[in-house]
Amino acid sequence: MIQDTHISLAHGNGGRLMRELIEDLFAKHLRHPKLDIQTDAAVLPWQANNLIMSTDGFTVQPLEFPDSNIGALAVHGTCNDLAVSGAIPRYLTLNVFIEEGFEVAQLERIIDSLAQAAQEIDVAVVAGDTKVVQRGQGGGLYLATTGVGEKATSHKLGLEQIQQGDAILVSGTVGNHGIAVMLAREQFGLRGDLASDAAHVLPLTRSLLNLSGLRFMRDPTRGGLATVAHEIAQATGHCIRLQQSQIPIADPVQAVCDMLGYDPLYLACEGRVVAVIEHAQASQALQIWRDLGQHDAHIIGHVEAGQPRVILETVLGGERLLDELEDDPLPRIC
Amino acid sequence: MIQDTHISLAHGNGGRLMRELIEDLFAKHLRHPKLDIQTDAAVLPWQANNLIMSTDGFTVQPLEFPDSNIGALAVHGTCNDLAVSGAIPRYLTLNVFIEEGFEVAQLERIIDSLAQAAQEIDVAVVAGDTKVVQRGQGGGLYLATTGVGEKATSHKLGLEQIQQGDAILVSGTVGNHGIAVMLAREQFGLRGDLASDAAHVLPLTRSLLNLSGLRFMRDPTRGGLATVAHEIAQATGHCIRLQQSQIPIADPVQAVCDMLGYDPLYLACEGRVVAVIEHAQASQALQIWRDLGQHDAHIIGHVEAGQPRVILETVLGGERLLDELEDDPLPRIC
Repeated sequence: MIQDTHISLAHGNGGRLMRELIEDLFAKHLRHPKLDIQTDAAVLPWQANNLIMSTDGFTVQPLEFPDSNIGALAVHGTCNDLAVSGAIPRYLTLNVFIEEGFEVAQLERIIDSLAQAAQEIDVAVVAGDTKVVQRGQGGGLYLATTGVGEKATSHKLGLEQIQQGDAILVSGTVGNHGIAVMLAREQFGLRGDLASDAAHVLPLTRSLLNLSGLRFMRDPTRGGLATVAHEIAQATGHCIRLQQSQIPIADPVQAVCDMLGYDPLYLACEGRVVAVIEHAQASQALQIWRDLGQHDAHIIGHVEAGQPRVILETVLGGERLLDELEDDPLPRIC
Repeated sequence: MIQDTHISLAHGNGGRLMRELIEDLFAKHLRHPKLDIQTDAAVLPWQANNLIMSTDGFTVQPLEFPDSNIGALAVHGTCNDLAVSGAIPRYLTLNVFIEEGFEVAQLERIIDSLAQAAQEIDVAVVAGDTKVVQRGQGGGLYLATTGVGEKATSHKLGLEQIQQGDAILVSGTVGNHGIAVMLAREQFGLRGDLASDAAHVLPLTRSLLNLSGLRFMRDPTRGGLATVAHEIAQATGHCIRLQQSQIPIADPVQAVCDMLGYDPLYLACEGRVVAVIEHAQASQALQIWRDLGQHDAHIIGHVEAGQPRVILETVLGGERLLDELEDDPLPRIC
């Protein structure tokens, strides 16, 4: 049951309150055999079951940040959800909610970026809708994109495929996007050249599809790596054990986190993939990613027998339980 | 070229400024052979070309109004766009943008309505996304829905199919939705039992698909009947002639319009269909709709040679040019 009578920011952060809102309100009313609230994208039971659909809303502040903006992010976010589901993104639709008074020149920069991102992935924007809301009732610009993709593998991917002993990989450093957006937004007087990791992950997901031991992929956005680990633990009933020493974190990200008290494991990435793969094929998968230029890719942990929880083996040899995210360290990062 | 440097409410009203924004900014950047900005829905060039996709955003204020609310509207709006394109809606995705502080009980009422509307049309919500924005940066609740449908006819429908001499039909009274929402919102001291016409139109669109002379269907939402007539005139290069005496308008809608100076021909409907059909089959089409209980359905005009403009033959026997919508009489009605 939802305990609160009113919605708070934490209902949108990817953590426990958001999970409860989705399970206890949305899924309760919208229940349908095809609505799986634990997946990034839905397989449409049609045409040989090879159509996959996904949707995502974007409210990032500021709208433009180092190396990307809400427009490109809106393409990457939805296409990445399709990609980690084992699909090739084909078509997108676009919803635009503009606040009265928004600058046309900025809108044009953002839509130009969105169009470039779509072109890079070779995905077509086939339909759209624009709404304008009164001044003071929007955040400048909100976007939503919905994508349809084509399954690129006959291989079954999903949380239910994960087995004890499987290895967990991440394709690059975590938390860059969260910290880059936060530095662009807040007035900490911190300036650096830290850029968002926002990018499409299609080459990374496609490259693993031929591995028979691939079980599951996800992009760690809201709630970060720790939240993906929790989703795996809860869905499988197994324990997730992560090695802190193996989790790639860029020095400036760690430095800002240390200074401000954030944990990079809970910060959003927008261009990384977490993959769960049979132990025997983990090194091969890692090599494939490194050959694609992902030099920070690592095997960061594994699935083991035990209570469904997430254990971090610290650099000093201790163990720390990673809790499910409650308060949002950084709202509005996607 | 867009003349303005900043977005105004009129850029979202369905009229000239919105058309310019879409043509000169969105379509310019997103141009693609599959993006047709004049259609309600896009045909995906896939699987025998029988998949159709459409999207719509919803910002109506108030969120609940007589006989419907933003939840049901979000299902009807997108499913109607698919229906008028000759498709059967199959799958929906849902984006939710909630303002911090929104009441959970109201959210539940709205999502319950949305789920009921989806069930009535037999369309499944297969994926969704929720974002929460800070207090003062939203309008309570904004929704977006994206639908995929299956083409239900091999018949070509579209503005390009329209020919001189074709008849224009409307399935029921116009302007009810716009006036119902406005009365629910504004403090005019006017109270009536006027309900929105919001509904799904699938039975109405399906019923005409076997008529070989059917050219085009559209639901007259933002900008109303007059705006659909303008779209037809501009796309075909022909003149649209409407008979005022034949356009069905409910008495209370006309009364409120007279009192407040609105023109019902520019007000949104959310459960009506405008159909263009070969003259010889117009009476048959009308009878089909009336047999379905649409007692206010009428043949309201026709397409004729002449400049691309919209002429209204008034009840008194005169002629009036219906201009393209500029200022929005009633913002935020969908």
